[in-house]
Amino acid sequence: MEIRMAKRMDGMKASDIREILKLTQVPGMISFAGGLPAAEAFPVRRIQEVTMEVLAHKGHRALQYSTTEGDVRLREIIGERMNTRLGTSLSADEILITTGSQQGLDLSGKIFLDEGDVVLCESPTYLGAINAFRAYEPCFVEVKTDDDGMDIADLERCIAQNPGAKFAYVIPDFQNPTGRCWSLERRRAFLEVCTQHGIPVIEDSPYSELRFKGEILPPLKALDESGSVVFLGTFSKIFCPGLRVAWLAAAPELREKYVMVKQGADLHTSTLGQRQIAAYLDRFDLEEDLNALKEIYRRRREVMLRTMDETFPPGTHYTRPDGGLFLWVELPDDINARELLARSLEEGVAFVPGGSFYPNGGHENTMRLNYSAMPEDRIEKGIRRLAKVLCEMMGERCPAGEEADVSAVSV
Amino acid sequence: MEIRMAKRMDGMKASDIREILKLTQVPGMISFAGGLPAAEAFPVRRIQEVTMEVLAHKGHRALQYSTTEGDVRLREIIGERMNTRLGTSLSADEILITTGSQQGLDLSGKIFLDEGDVVLCESPTYLGAINAFRAYEPCFVEVKTDDDGMDIADLERCIAQNPGAKFAYVIPDFQNPTGRCWSLERRRAFLEVCTQHGIPVIEDSPYSELRFKGEILPPLKALDESGSVVFLGTFSKIFCPGLRVAWLAAAPELREKYVMVKQGADLHTSTLGQRQIAAYLDRFDLEEDLNALKEIYRRRREVMLRTMDETFPPGTHYTRPDGGLFLWVELPDDINARELLARSLEEGVAFVPGGSFYPNGGHENTMRLNYSAMPEDRIEKGIRRLAKVLCEMMGERCPAGEEADVSAVSV
Repeated sequence: MEIRMAKRMDGMKASDIREILKLTQVPGMISFAGGLPAAEAFPVRRIQEVTMEVLAHKGHRALQYSTTEGDVRLREIIGERMNTRLGTSLSADEILITTGSQQGLDLSGKIFLDEGDVVLCESPTYLGAINAFRAYEPCFVEVKTDDDGMDIADLERCIAQNPGAKFAYVIPDFQNPTGRCWSLERRRAFLEVCTQHGIPVIEDSPYSELRFKGEILPPLKALDESGSVVFLGTFSKIFCPGLRVAWLAAAPELREKYVMVKQGADLHTSTLGQRQIAAYLDRFDLEEDLNALKEIYRRRREVMLRTMDETFPPGTHYTRPDGGLFLWVELPDDINARELLARSLEEGVAFVPGGSFYPNGGHENTMRLNYSAMPEDRIEKGIRRLAKVLCEMMGERCPAGEEADVSAVSV
Repeated sequence: MEIRMAKRMDGMKASDIREILKLTQVPGMISFAGGLPAAEAFPVRRIQEVTMEVLAHKGHRALQYSTTEGDVRLREIIGERMNTRLGTSLSADEILITTGSQQGLDLSGKIFLDEGDVVLCESPTYLGAINAFRAYEPCFVEVKTDDDGMDIADLERCIAQNPGAKFAYVIPDFQNPTGRCWSLERRRAFLEVCTQHGIPVIEDSPYSELRFKGEILPPLKALDESGSVVFLGTFSKIFCPGLRVAWLAAAPELREKYVMVKQGADLHTSTLGQRQIAAYLDRFDLEEDLNALKEIYRRRREVMLRTMDETFPPGTHYTRPDGGLFLWVELPDDINARELLARSLEEGVAFVPGGSFYPNGGHENTMRLNYSAMPEDRIEKGIRRLAKVLCEMMGERCPAGEEADVSAVSV
């Protein structure tokens, strides 16, 4: 039987990353492709402790249906934590627990977007957001973005051309895919322009607390006086992702719309998952875990950058992020990263070609490298292999070719 | 700042049930309003055991990101269980784990519905489905439904008038809200008509295994030869709802669309939650728990029906379900159940007026009563109070008025 689907399905496709991740299931593959946190850092024993506590004392309630808004104690802790660490002034009533930040993106699309509506975004931007929004059939207008954040003049030009833009979607801290972090000045200027034109902001912030160097900058939500910023936060990158517990913070009236729409999407997020995290935060010091995690990531990033500095051929450029999980490479214009991927997979190294992060296509000479998921020795080995393939494609001798380890994938 | 939302938000409103459930938070309230399973029956100690096992042996993986499709062992068990108990012939590759069946509804709306598309449904139908689909701006065409299921002649008439209908949404087993269970003949005839006209079927089946009397009937999915039935199953009613783990079964090509759309909605369902349930099903006998649960519900249903038989005034009609969590009352045409609710809340008894379950309105003389969530003595007390209010509204002497307990709510 031939089944007629919604028009939106024509424009949707499985995430490139998902397809690439399937290829990385080969034993021995060195993957810079995913965005997995370092599982070895998960505080499993402590999670066991609090899980037992929750099940032993409030097991029946932890396994029952619960409110769409989410566990009130968890919302209180999230609000207090954000107020202390990020400079917001939120109450529990402005917070909604979501099933991962991905759900926050989907709900945002559902609340704001009619077919053909304009979404303003960084260029490049997060692939998962493109996919979530695409279900609501918008047009993406990519605003020029540099190392300090969105280009304000280009933002104003884009708004002038699209005065009805429904929202701006941005990741100001250690962006996925580039690792860039917006300057404070740029945050202020961006918010001023958006407020002036009545454009709500979806601020996706999974990485702001994963800063290895310098001080945490205030999120847009902390600078916002008009109530137009929706902040998406998550425990996936600062605790563990498998529980699928995240949150959003929005002005009460807007948050009420999110509650209503979430109710239709999945009723509520796992009661047990929420209580596990609330109990954990009540009992243990997440900052202690975070410091250990940041040290792991800082060192992996160092190894990746140092090896790239040694081995990547001239004409390649890459970001040097002070936090987060990713760095971004620009190759010479004539080098196609998808072709590079095909070759590097043969050498047992995976990454994500950057073109996927541009909703309107192009930029096939870019790639995203993840440094959080592999141990240091494999990062070094993988970058050397990747550099060798890249040098071959560019017709250059690899700067550190003699040292390159190109042993078989299965080793 | 005034925020412009999507057009769909005009048609959406918070669920009536949700608003009523807020009112039931008063101490002493006897609530027949929600659809909560009996929490006292949750196998908490066994869940503790398997949770410890999962965290101790595979903790890091259970807390990490996982695939959108869901845990392969859990999908295998679900397929085997359905094949054995429900007569399907499913493999793990036809199953997708969802974040509650509510997500299966939302994803169905997203995959199939463009604005103005027709959804065929029972009359009445499940409110949560109406809310999920409404986000995609369809028209609901209610097909006449009696105690044996959808009226086939009316179904054919509705299809003739709406040949482009995108899907039929049905709950053949102990429907929410009516408790009705379709006959085998009606299932076959329904499927034949839908297949003939190329109309896919969303079969929502949370209650089929909660049968107190007689044999489980084959779901539409087991009778389907054209691959046009999407089956929604869940652990919420046969195990516990707080983990938000459910599934859908669909033909491989269609299931692949669901996977793609789920990826944009929440990436995947809780890894830990899935592994907890898989470990539970591998180690314990769910059928044993189910038998205990069904005995609880059977007795509660008996008490509710017996008390209604004794106390409800002539002119009221109600279903006598052989399974599930709900029964359905039709009051005389001039009795408005919302008005009855307002009065019965004053007496400390809550229920859901039936009008909410008709997507196109009307039928304000109906109501849904839940019998799974209250102990027997409170069911009896609550029904007596409700009957008294109802008799007063109908200007009748309550058949068992002398015995009615109308002590204050807080007692």
